[in-house]
Formats: sequence, structure tokens, C-alpha cells
Amino acid sequence: MPFDPIDARSNRRRILGLGASLGGVLTACKSKPAAEQPEPSRLGKPLSAYGERSPFEKAARLVSLGKNPEIGATRTPLQDSYGILTPASLHFERHHSGVPAIDPASHRLLLHGLVDRPLLLTMDDIHRLPSVSRIHFIECAGNSGSEWGPKTAADVQRAHGLASCSEWTGVPLSILLAEVGVKPEASWIIAEGADACRMQRSIPLKKAGDDVLLAFGQNGEAIRPEQGYPLRLVIPGFEGNTNVKWLRRIKVVDQPYMTKDETSKYTDLMADGTARQFTFAMEAKSVITFPSGGQKLAGAGLYEITGLAWSGRGRIDRVEVSTDGGETWQNARIDEPRLKMAFTRFRLPWKWDGQAAALQSRCTDETGYVQPTREALVEARGMNSQFHNNCITIWKVSPDGGVRNA
Amino acid sequence: MPFDPIDARSNRRRILGLGASLGGVLTACKSKPAAEQPEPSRLGKPLSAYGERSPFEKAARLVSLGKNPEIGATRTPLQDSYGILTPASLHFERHHSGVPAIDPASHRLLLHGLVDRPLLLTMDDIHRLPSVSRIHFIECAGNSGSEWGPKTAADVQRAHGLASCSEWTGVPLSILLAEVGVKPEASWIIAEGADACRMQRSIPLKKAGDDVLLAFGQNGEAIRPEQGYPLRLVIPGFEGNTNVKWLRRIKVVDQPYMTKDETSKYTDLMADGTARQFTFAMEAKSVITFPSGGQKLAGAGLYEITGLAWSGRGRIDRVEVSTDGGETWQNARIDEPRLKMAFTRFRLPWKWDGQAAALQSRCTDETGYVQPTREALVEARGMNSQFHNNCITIWKVSPDGGVRNA
Repeated sequence: MPFDPIDARSNRRRILGLGASLGGVLTACKSKPAAEQPEPSRLGKPLSAYGERSPFEKAARLVSLGKNPEIGATRTPLQDSYGILTPASLHFERHHSGVPAIDPASHRLLLHGLVDRPLLLTMDDIHRLPSVSRIHFIECAGNSGSEWGPKTAADVQRAHGLASCSEWTGVPLSILLAEVGVKPEASWIIAEGADACRMQRSIPLKKAGDDVLLAFGQNGEAIRPEQGYPLRLVIPGFEGNTNVKWLRRIKVVDQPYMTKDETSKYTDLMADGTARQFTFAMEAKSVITFPSGGQKLAGAGLYEITGLAWSGRGRIDRVEVSTDGGETWQNARIDEPRLKMAFTRFRLPWKWDGQAAALQSRCTDETGYVQPTREALVEARGMNSQFHNNCITIWKVSPDGGVRNA
Repeated sequence: MPFDPIDARSNRRRILGLGASLGGVLTACKSKPAAEQPEPSRLGKPLSAYGERSPFEKAARLVSLGKNPEIGATRTPLQDSYGILTPASLHFERHHSGVPAIDPASHRLLLHGLVDRPLLLTMDDIHRLPSVSRIHFIECAGNSGSEWGPKTAADVQRAHGLASCSEWTGVPLSILLAEVGVKPEASWIIAEGADACRMQRSIPLKKAGDDVLLAFGQNGEAIRPEQGYPLRLVIPGFEGNTNVKWLRRIKVVDQPYMTKDETSKYTDLMADGTARQFTFAMEAKSVITFPSGGQKLAGAGLYEITGLAWSGRGRIDRVEVSTDGGETWQNARIDEPRLKMAFTRFRLPWKWDGQAAALQSRCTDETGYVQPTREALVEARGMNSQFHNNCITIWKVSPDGGVRNA
């Protein structure tokens, strides 16, 4: 928004009408300027080697335990998110046998199978290789599973919190595939983690040699233990489970291995009884994070509707927002940069009139794919699916300001 | 780097020659495949609500205390940096009276002075306004001050660690300036913090109404206490001290106020005895973060030279690297996206032959400005300056692998 001092000096340019929009605050200012906070008068806390957040901040991952505390998922508090990055401390988790405590000095990565020259690399070796940093989301294939219904999740964290976005730094896998010499009959790789469940996933060789990273950095520091320290496979746009954590082996092979996690989970049972398997790319999705389920508006007036949109197939081109139950749609503003396979942040100022409203967002990615309604998704996929739900979420606002999942 | 499976299958495409470059590891692999780490066999750590880094990671801000622990600076460990983001816990600090512990519920921002309609805003008010997220560096005007010499700093953290880069989320100040109605005679603003020293800086109205943010978010969560929680002025490209933390007041005025910190500090005494004041924009700078002073190379072979470049005047267009003391220069690869007034990450693979080498980087920003040598900087500015040093840093590598500031 370019600034024109002349324009700003004009009484006519009051875009927001804050006096009316924000309630009594301005009145208080005019009549009681003493409403400012007390003058600061004491020294604060000292310098520190490694900072922490304010004790007033309470955003937390939602822990959903299974039979034991090492197995299960935690969800990112998207309702408390800012921008496109997820703090590493709040990145969602999905563990099948807990978070291994790995000493990077003893960690090894083996590249073997249908290759000419197998490689066994230390972390020091990996750090010496050409690397790159890119911002990408990771989303669990089970994210938004609650939205198949009939009972949908109460808030955006429960509904969509198995998605997070980080700056990942690592070595392009393509470099190492070229180095080991892939044999002509190879067509897949098997990635294996160093967790006790030996997580394994089959990934097409074509993707493995495209934009996949052996990531050792996350948001400017070493990757966090819950995200695979010291080494994780980051597969831009692919369902979360393929982004194998605590990566210890990559085997080049000639077929998918039908591992436990790609057969018992992450396949979609269609209405006709057939199963879709290896639907790797997460389709375009958007969700309004404010106002969202469980929040409460403080009264009529100005708000910023904001949310996140992402696609496993590239950039987000457009996000539309409706505040009237889908009758009319407006283009939301999208913060730059808009990156491939990354969260984008959208925003739309909204003057709430205090009446019932239904808020929803709908995104379009660079392939032209448009996020579907729940009805359209069910028509295409049937109701047997548990995974890969990317339908539009509708938040209903009541006259009392309460917000709930419609 | 696009992947060609056919190409990857060819023995001819061994870009890196890792066998030769990485020393004995590959040999170990071929002769002793048992060198893999032991098979994982135990459950790891449980799920958690707010994650922490690995206990093996020790990167820390360097604390330089003054007479008391509330006043001084800490420096970002750039030698341990990845990508373009600085973890909030490692963002440099410069405090003049410690870090105030502010309850956001009681914090207020007053906009007053030469305006038609003064505003007093709560944090709840501010969160309701239109906002934006952008990635920007903040750099103290005193950063790299050691490099005036004669005794330069031993490592990149001591030399250049008063610079960090974050995704900031906040309300464009231009919106609020338009809202309060700036009077015709106004030309500056005075920003004031809620720390006990009442930090104040004068900022030209033109910049205030351009790209300045009232930031409440940092790297996806609330701004950290050391960075101004709950509200900081973020002035893209301007010297760090103007980015007033714990922001409590903005007064619109008709002249700079010559506050303590803009007169006692941050002015540059020139060779002819005159002083340059209000040189706000930080000029283009780059520095190699690996290999850098105090590090030790493990022996001849392949390494990735990497570093950071930034400019207070826009995008970085080019970074050149020399490994031979400035005789020849190569263009480094720069990670995308390259953003205005943000860190950029540059990289160049380097095969070290084990001989003495002198490594340096030189950046050019979108205005065409080229980072100067120390000699050129001294010629232009003389030797009386303490602030605004952006000269090229040269790291000397010894045959034993040791790296030191030349």
C-alpha cells in the first residue's frame, strides 16, 4: 500500500473508520488519555544465550495419545499462526514408535540397491555436499479426516492441524542418485527411518530425482528431533508419511514394496470398492484460521479474516472468501512470496454487522484445480475414505460472536 | 537441478566424485558395510506440546555483558545458520535497559502529535487491523564494527552476528497514519519504546508511511520478548536501533528530535571532522559463514562454501566468491526466493586442494551498489567511524585446515 503524505493529510481518507469499528477505545483516548499504561521505570530481564517465548503466550500442539505416549499425533495450533511459517516447536507430529534420540556423530545414511556405487555417508559428509534451502509445507494424509463427517471437528487445530510449514535446508537427493549411478531397471526408492518401527515408504524414482531434499536444517537451525533429527527426507507436496524422518537408508529398487504404512494406511477406499493407492500429491486446500471454530468475536465491527492455503501441485494462484454462506465471493489478498508447495497466507478485511454469518475460503492452484465443496468431494470419492480430505470448511458466526464448524 | 533418470543411470555423470572428495568413508562402506549404526530397537521419546531442539545442538547467542547484565548485546551464531531465517531464540539482542515483561492485555499504543485524530490502541485492536507478513533482516548499525581494525574479530559471530532475519507479521503503519490524519506541517515521527530507558528514535515520515510494520508476529508465533513483545516497529533496511522494540508511542512531528541514541550513537565521524547523521539504510553486505574464522576443515576435498548477503536498499542481485585472494571471482548460486531487505543464502561448491587459500564474498544489490573492500571503505569514510561497516571479509585457510580472519 504506497503512502501518499498529501493523501494521508486529508481528512477524507479514513479507510477504516476505526472510531466506529473498534468500539470505545478511541472515546477513552479522547476523554482519558491517562488510559496509557504506566511509565516504564525498572530494568527488565538480562541478555540470554537462547531465548524463550513470553510466558503470556500459550499456543501449544494438541496431544492426542493412543495406547501409549510414544505413538500418536500432535496438531499445530493454526488458530494461533502468523504468516506462512510454523515455529519448529509447534510443527505437528506423527510418530509410530516415539522420537529416537540420535547422536549425529554416529548417524549414517546408506544408499544402496540397484546402484553402481553404494554410499555410506556420515552427517559430516552430508554437510559438505551442495545444499539448498526451500520453504515447504508437510501435511499428513490423515489431516482434515474429521471433515468427512458426520461429526466434524470443533476447531481449526483439531480439523486441520496435521499440516505445518518450514524452511528446510538439505542436499538434493538427485545429486546423490547421480553419484551412486542408478541401474537401468530401477524405478522406485524405499526410504527407511531409524525409529524402532523402521518406517518405510516407496517413492517413485522420478520424484526422488526431482525436488526431494535430504534435510538437516529447519527454520534456520538443525532439524528438530520430532521432525527427524539429524536427517529427514522432504518430498515437496507429497503426503506427510512419505517424508521419512530419522532417515537411515535409501534403497533403489524396481517396484514399490507395499510396506505396512502404504497398505494398512493412506490408501483411499472408493465408493465402488476399489482402493486408490499411492495418491501422493496433497491436493489444494485452504482454511480460514481467524475467525475459526471455538473463537469468539468481541462485537460488531472491523476484523481481518485470515487463513492459509497450500497445494501439493505447485503455487496457490487465488483464494476467494465468502462471508455469506457462498452466495458471493471476494478475492483475498495473498502475502508475497507465493512459493510452490508452501503455505500461503491470505487476508481480507471484514466489517461484521453483528448478524449470523457463514465464512469459507476456496483456493485455486497453478494447475487450475479448485478446492471442492464437501458435497463435490463426496460425489467424487464416496464416503469410505479416511484420508486426503481437502474440502472447503465453513465456519458459522452467531450473533453472540461465537464461531463453530458448520 | 532437474533430474534425468537416463542421465543418472550413466556412469559418466559423477559430478562430485564423492569417493575421492569425502575421504575414506566410501572405502569403509565397500569393505565394511557393518559400519551402519545399530538397528533401532527401542521406543523413543513421547509426543509433546511444545518442542525443543536436540540436546546435541549447542548453537547459542554470544553474550557480551556491559556493567550490568541488562545492558549490552548478544550475537547470532551465523556460523551455525541454515537458510535465510534466524531462529527467534538466536536473534541478536541489543538492550539498553533489559527486556521488559509486558502483559499484552495492558499494553497500549498511542499515536499522537501533529494528527487530526489521536488514537490509543490495545493489542486486541491492533490484531483486528489489516496486516501482512514479510521476511526482513534487522542489523545493528554497530555490526561489523570490529572490521574497521586494526584488530579484527576472530569469527563470523563476533564480527557480523548483530544481524538476523525473521518473518515479521504486523499492521502497515501507513494504514494508521492515514487513519489519524497527518497534519500538513508533519515530516518526521518519533517512536518510543516501553523499556525503562524510553528508547526513542526519529524516523522520516516518508519512510514511516512506506513499508514500516507494527509487528506482533515473528517466525510464525508472537514476537519474542527480546525482540519487542508484544509490539515492535520493523523498518525494512534501516539500522537496527530504529526498529523500536516494546513500541508504546508514535508521535508525528515536524523535525527530528535529536534523541540520545541518534546523537550519542549511530552517527559517523568522517575524515574531515564532519559527522554523517541519519544514514538509515544499511548498505549491501555479504559474508561467508562456512568456512569462517575459528572453524577447521577436515582435510582436502569437496566443501560447500556458503554465506549470507543482504542490502537495506532492496534485493541482492549477485554474490561473487573468490577462493584465491581476489584474483578470480565466480558467481555463487543464490537460493530463491530473493526478497527485498532480507537475508539471501549463497552457495558455491569448492574442492579444496589442501593449500593456503583466501576466501571472500562480494555482493551487488539491485541498485547496482557493490560491496567495497576494506581499503575502499576507509578511503571513502576515513578511520573515525565506529558504525556502518559493510566491507568485504576475508577468511584465510591454512594448509592444516584452520580458518582465521585475515
